[in-house]
Amino acid sequence: MSGALRECRSVLLTGASRGIGLQIVKDLAKKTEMPALIIAAARNPEAAEDLQRVAKEYSGVHVVTLDVTSQISIDAAVEEVSPLVGAEGLNCLINNAAVHKATDLEMVTAEEMLKTFECNAVSPLMVTKAFLPLLRAAAMRGSGMGVHRAAVINVSSSLGSVELNCGALTEFKCYPYRASKAALNMVTRCLAEDLESEGIFCVAVHPGWVRTDMGGPQADLSVEESVSSILSLLAGLSEKDHGGYLDYAGKTLPW
Amino acid sequence: MSGALRECRSVLLTGASRGIGLQIVKDLAKKTEMPALIIAAARNPEAAEDLQRVAKEYSGVHVVTLDVTSQISIDAAVEEVSPLVGAEGLNCLINNAAVHKATDLEMVTAEEMLKTFECNAVSPLMVTKAFLPLLRAAAMRGSGMGVHRAAVINVSSSLGSVELNCGALTEFKCYPYRASKAALNMVTRCLAEDLESEGIFCVAVHPGWVRTDMGGPQADLSVEESVSSILSLLAGLSEKDHGGYLDYAGKTLPW
Ligand SMILES: NC(=O)c1ccc[n+]([C@@H]2O[C@H](COP(=O)([O-])OP(=O)(O)OC[C@H]3O[C@@H](n4cnc5c(N)ncnc54)[C@H](OP(=O)(O)O)[C@@H]3O)[C@@H](O)[C@H]2O)c1
Ligand SMILES: NC(=O)c1ccc[n+]([C@@H]2O[C@H](COP(=O)([O-])OP(=O)(O)OC[C@H]3O[C@@H](n4cnc5c(N)ncnc54)[C@H](OP(=O)(O)O)[C@@H]3O)[C@@H](O)[C@H]2O)c1
Repeated sequence: MSGALRECRSVLLTGASRGIGLQIVKDLAKKTEMPALIIAAARNPEAAEDLQRVAKEYSGVHVVTLDVTSQISIDAAVEEVSPLVGAEGLNCLINNAAVHKATDLEMVTAEEMLKTFECNAVSPLMVTKAFLPLLRAAAMRGSGMGVHRAAVINVSSSLGSVELNCGALTEFKCYPYRASKAALNMVTRCLAEDLESEGIFCVAVHPGWVRTDMGGPQADLSVEESVSSILSLLAGLSEKDHGGYLDYAGKTLPW
Repeated sequence: MSGALRECRSVLLTGASRGIGLQIVKDLAKKTEMPALIIAAARNPEAAEDLQRVAKEYSGVHVVTLDVTSQISIDAAVEEVSPLVGAEGLNCLINNAAVHKATDLEMVTAEEMLKTFECNAVSPLMVTKAFLPLLRAAAMRGSGMGVHRAAVINVSSSLGSVELNCGALTEFKCYPYRASKAALNMVTRCLAEDLESEGIFCVAVHPGWVRTDMGGPQADLSVEESVSSILSLLAGLSEKDHGGYLDYAGKTLPW
């Protein structure tokens, strides 16, 4: 995330307590050309010991409390972040927090469908809405499209692709997760359409199958490999990627 | 719906009180080669005067109470329908009930997202799960794939296509509805994958833009035009359409 990141002053990331989110914070903090402000949001920061360690080591890392499923928590986070970013606004919002539970046809319940949809599809929309004034402030000061100006990065999944839900990929039985990520892809595309005229970039990104608590030990990629690719991808994003659905390597996925 | 309908003994349809659902009941009842059993489900049958009239006129039409968002109501409907279809099971389940409210980025709330998702994406899944034993009974007695054997028809919308969410179609601002129908498309594809080996056919169908309470007076098609096309489409469905996303004219839509 060099290049475009030279101009990206501030990043806010949800679900920074572990997995891909934590690794993004670590990698950004270590870069020489890191954003001045890395706002690492976690719903329970006290319990996130690794994140606290990173925040102690790097002064640019600010930890804020954010449960993405709570509007009260979202509003409080905006209150806390506003003075941090100041008049320059927020350049990059990464909606990374999500839940996943393997759930086949027999096990699936309405409750699990709703809970997963709330966290994975509704929350990114509500978080984006709440931080829009800060994203708009940043967008007004820049030109072009990308993380150097104002961007919403929704961390999706290839399991959200309806088209790819055939062949080998169908082995992953998870009605709630798949439905939520398909919905998130739609939300991303709606946001892209609505925010384009204001210069706010939006994209859905699949991080690969990654060895985290969610991905499990048999996954393809280490969290370091995935995040290193994601950060290169983010740095290179431009107008042509607006409203797209890309994997960590930059390949476009079918919806 | 001739041809294949000669062998389709029973159809159950949700949201039969008005709009497209009511017209499907009317058209099926009028056909000479209609299914012997047309089970018209409505959440509030007493208030559905037109439906009651149709049921009085045609002895094959049975009205049952079904609020698709209530598991208690779903279970009660299964209890009521089981003896009606008997050992031959249910050939065709049409998940038609849905809600829609124009909701742009400024107006959209988490509550509206959840309510719409529940009715439009979760309920078709829960209704299908509950009627699976009846669909399975029918599937065991037939061969091939389609409404003559055992089929789940999910009434989706072109507004659920992420790919088509650009250009003129983006004028329809409705985050909750779009997200719910994208999720329904994913659910359809998951069901198609899981039920294929049992010979149960699944498809997502876009009825066109239709002049109903939902579609509004400026829509392209009359409800008669839409339903006439849909019934021809259903009659012609076969293996090649399994897991697909078709409009009323039989054209494949991109996800
Ligand atoms: N790993 C993979 O193979 C894979 C593949 C495709 C897509 N993804 C996507 O990549 C993103 C990160 O996944 P991961 O593998 O890092 O998952 P993970 O290891 O399970 O971590 C999930 C993160 O989300 C947070 N979170 C969950 N619910 C939250 C809430 N209500 N409020 C705030 N934070 C919440 C968790 O916080 P707590 O620590 O407080 O629980 C945790 O930080 C997700 O969007 C996931 O869907 C992952
Ligand atoms: N019209 C269009 O242009 C259009 C375009 C694309 C897709 N569609 C889809 O086509 C289908 C039918 O639409 P329509 O135009 O006929 O809509 P409509 O005129 O608004 O009728 C909706 C039907 O759904 C029922 N319903 C809603 N919530 C329900 C619940 N919880 N339980 C049981 N029934 C419920 C309604 O029952 P009540 O009478 O009790 O409210 C009514 O019968 C929907 O799936 C819709 O998304 C329509």
